[in-house]
Amino acid sequence: MNADVTTAPLFNRIALIGFGLIGGSIARGARAQGLVGEIVTTARSEKTRTRVAELGIVDKVVATNVEAVKDADLIILCIPVGACGPVAAEIAAHLKPGAIISDVGSVKGAVARDMAPHLPGGVHFVPAHPVAGTEHSGPDSGFAELFINRWCILTPPEGTDPAATERLRAFWAALGAKVEIMTPDHHDLVLAITSHLPHLIAYTIVGTADELAQVTESEVIKFSAGGFRDFTRIAASDPTMWRDVFLANKEAVLEMLGTFNEDLSKLTRAIRRGDGEALFDHFTRTRAIRRGIVETGQDSAAPDFGRPHANLKKPG
Amino acid sequence: MNADVTTAPLFNRIALIGFGLIGGSIARGARAQGLVGEIVTTARSEKTRTRVAELGIVDKVVATNVEAVKDADLIILCIPVGACGPVAAEIAAHLKPGAIISDVGSVKGAVARDMAPHLPGGVHFVPAHPVAGTEHSGPDSGFAELFINRWCILTPPEGTDPAATERLRAFWAALGAKVEIMTPDHHDLVLAITSHLPHLIAYTIVGTADELAQVTESEVIKFSAGGFRDFTRIAASDPTMWRDVFLANKEAVLEMLGTFNEDLSKLTRAIRRGDGEALFDHFTRTRAIRRGIVETGQDSAAPDFGRPHANLKKPG
Repeated sequence: MNADVTTAPLFNRIALIGFGLIGGSIARGARAQGLVGEIVTTARSEKTRTRVAELGIVDKVVATNVEAVKDADLIILCIPVGACGPVAAEIAAHLKPGAIISDVGSVKGAVARDMAPHLPGGVHFVPAHPVAGTEHSGPDSGFAELFINRWCILTPPEGTDPAATERLRAFWAALGAKVEIMTPDHHDLVLAITSHLPHLIAYTIVGTADELAQVTESEVIKFSAGGFRDFTRIAASDPTMWRDVFLANKEAVLEMLGTFNEDLSKLTRAIRRGDGEALFDHFTRTRAIRRGIVETGQDSAAPDFGRPHANLKKPG
Repeated sequence: MNADVTTAPLFNRIALIGFGLIGGSIARGARAQGLVGEIVTTARSEKTRTRVAELGIVDKVVATNVEAVKDADLIILCIPVGACGPVAAEIAAHLKPGAIISDVGSVKGAVARDMAPHLPGGVHFVPAHPVAGTEHSGPDSGFAELFINRWCILTPPEGTDPAATERLRAFWAALGAKVEIMTPDHHDLVLAITSHLPHLIAYTIVGTADELAQVTESEVIKFSAGGFRDFTRIAASDPTMWRDVFLANKEAVLEMLGTFNEDLSKLTRAIRRGDGEALFDHFTRTRAIRRGIVETGQDSAAPDFGRPHANLKKPG
């Protein structure tokens, strides 16, 4: 890479609306990499704004969305997808001509439909979705490395200025992400299976375990290392974010749920009939996809996600 | 602890039948802690036996189950649950009077029913299930620390000599496990929700993703960090072991599946109707159980299971 390109900020001023896990990770990464001249941020709650100011990661914390976007060259909405339309309406008249406006929402079709009608002609709308996260949320949860080797999907509407898309691509690449461009509808279908359905199922089974009459909560917790604990991590994700995802990506999620239910019925039937061969065949096929995920660096090769293990005390 | 108790071996000779993840971890842990005078092992395949001999972890590798149990004070079957009955029949006549015979199967009712009728009166049958594991299998996959802070459930049949149960409890405790005693039926119900259903669901969704026409396997792999990759770990578990688990614990698994399906239908309906409040309420309740699991040390408090993150390259 050319030293001049990487040391000059990509944007003079960026505005982050919302400072949770994703907003906070963008701020930390952008600062660590010197990608922006100035970072301005805001958050809905005063508590969050106060905390962000204390953290000292950004240049300015302001009280309103309208103040935040003033003179910004890149505006990123880092808020639940259901809030993107109303916030776009609120800030539209205050956007700097030529600015790029983007988001980080896990659903792209609905967000584009909600935001686009409000945006003035002179700004570039390039929706984005960094496929990265942890189960934590809030201003303290972000970290600069979150996006490294993760994919960020851009869904620029037809007719978007390629230069604007390229600038946003460069920004995400500098945060460590690999960038892919696709249509919003295809994004929503892909994420329905790789993210939304897994979350729904995890939320379901954790709820099921919580309400059983025959097995106590204490037993569920004690014996969770048998597999259950893996599901509790994503079922601890932010409820507002996920409520909005399911409302906004209803069609694709219901479609994937239909296929999942058919497959679960097939396996259930195999169990009921004692068809060991069908079970064995299915369980063998599912190993290949794990190998692909590990080989491409999308998960750790260490057993058990690399969870730490204590040492045995020496006897005697 | 009294130094005399912990330095004297708990058993003069133990026989491990099967040397996969669990058998190999018992051998490594028992040797590290000096719990046994001698470890004899066998495995069905010659390849595994050769590898175990190379590893140098045990004192003797023999070719048959009958040879392995000769003069052993503790025999542990570390094999798929479906194989326990036939192996019990094979070794029954060769067990040393007074020996303890145990297993590590994930199902306890069926295993006890399969093994007990073959066992002679003079031996102590104390079935066990260490609730611990990784997605790896084979003779190289075990490690001495696997059982630390994990639970091991013993299900001694009524009338078992309490001294035998106590010796096995002490053995597992010395491997780092916490020990609990329950009935086989209750064990099978608890594990159906904390282990068997999670595996079934993970196997299902990974299969679903693998067979979609609209989303390629390459896309599933790339964007798996959105949640899907968490499921692929347990769906990479040993197919033979899991086939046997579902065949052996059919009733309890089908019961839990019924409840899970009802709960999934409820959430599906909430999505279809756009009932954000119902979704939000459900997603909020599921956080408490995660907290319990982390607080009791059954999972790491680190975000994202503590998965490693690369560093950002410095710009310029």
